[in-house]
Amino acid sequence: MKGKFIVVEGLEGAGKSNAVRIVSEVLSAHKISFINTREPGGTKIAEALRNLWKEGIDGEHTTDKAEVLMIFAARTQLVETVIQPALAEGTWVIGDRHNMSSQAYQGGGRNLADLVDHIGEKILGDFEPDFTLYLDLDPAIGLERAKGRGALDRIEQQHIDFFHRTRERYLALTKDNPKAVVINAEQPIEKVSADIQQAVENFLTFAKV
Amino acid sequence: MKGKFIVVEGLEGAGKSNAVRIVSEVLSAHKISFINTREPGGTKIAEALRNLWKEGIDGEHTTDKAEVLMIFAARTQLVETVIQPALAEGTWVIGDRHNMSSQAYQGGGRNLADLVDHIGEKILGDFEPDFTLYLDLDPAIGLERAKGRGALDRIEQQHIDFFHRTRERYLALTKDNPKAVVINAEQPIEKVSADIQQAVENFLTFAKV
Repeated sequence: MKGKFIVVEGLEGAGKSNAVRIVSEVLSAHKISFINTREPGGTKIAEALRNLWKEGIDGEHTTDKAEVLMIFAARTQLVETVIQPALAEGTWVIGDRHNMSSQAYQGGGRNLADLVDHIGEKILGDFEPDFTLYLDLDPAIGLERAKGRGALDRIEQQHIDFFHRTRERYLALTKDNPKAVVINAEQPIEKVSADIQQAVENFLTFAKV
Repeated sequence: MKGKFIVVEGLEGAGKSNAVRIVSEVLSAHKISFINTREPGGTKIAEALRNLWKEGIDGEHTTDKAEVLMIFAARTQLVETVIQPALAEGTWVIGDRHNMSSQAYQGGGRNLADLVDHIGEKILGDFEPDFTLYLDLDPAIGLERAKGRGALDRIEQQHIDFFHRTRERYLALTKDNPKAVVINAEQPIEKVSADIQQAVENFLTFAKV
């Protein structure tokens, strides 16, 4: 049987790493074999693209359109060479971000929704996660948490309005989406973790695992 | 007055470098200021993308779709940060390859015409060269010449059928194209050079320079 593709999405500081850990624990408890991926990244070429996009070179940074194309290049490299082969052999995949991040950040945050939607359709076709956990919180709260982790990266340095537009797109994309669950990430960590665990258990029941 | 964008296109070994030199000489003779670009490449980030695509990392190579996206990322980075600003201030641009290479190599050679055309439209809009010189020759002749230059790169190692499909697309794209001239690159170098010089002079007359 084919594996399932579960993706964790959310703004900076929403608690994605914790969520990935909980999803991994639930799958392990059900004796489901899985791999973890992150985007952009997850293959040598995709990680090089991530780095080039995040760091730039000698003060040169990617234009918004180049950013979209590089993130999609990293995505298709990962999907074609890692995710799809794993799913085909029955291994599940837990993704730290996938296409919804492009729709939210580049589509919403950078106002490039038309470009992102068109490229996504051409590159991914009907490939999509079986289940998405979106960790929702006020961007201001997430950025406070992210600051506590150290220097802010290229995305984290954007104006707060960018994150409000990004969150709006996340909410629109997950609303009435039968393959997505919105987790209130402003709750105490124990409650967030319990909600994530419950959501994954529900998905496993639904997926008849 | 805005600068003009002149592009040299053709298969491996067609004589693009010689053509770029001749175009440069003609523009200099007319006291037209210009810059030279090459694709993929021409900015630090675009050159890094070119390198990543050509060399891969530790034996990992780009998938065909990632190749298309990375080449377009390099292209939009170059167009937005170098070519368009130059043209806007009246400087001409002589390009060693541009979008027609993607249409011919990835669209024709790799059979990804639909993807290449869609991304080209979304990324470039109506931006296109004012004049294209396409150096046409039998791929077998060009590859013989390229081999004489040393080790073949990623593209040069493709099967000969790939180059026949690429040439076919080049011919289709330049046929009845008022902004393109086909140069017979199988002729003796002196005749090729004279044809190129004449074609550029004709363009300058047409462009009223």
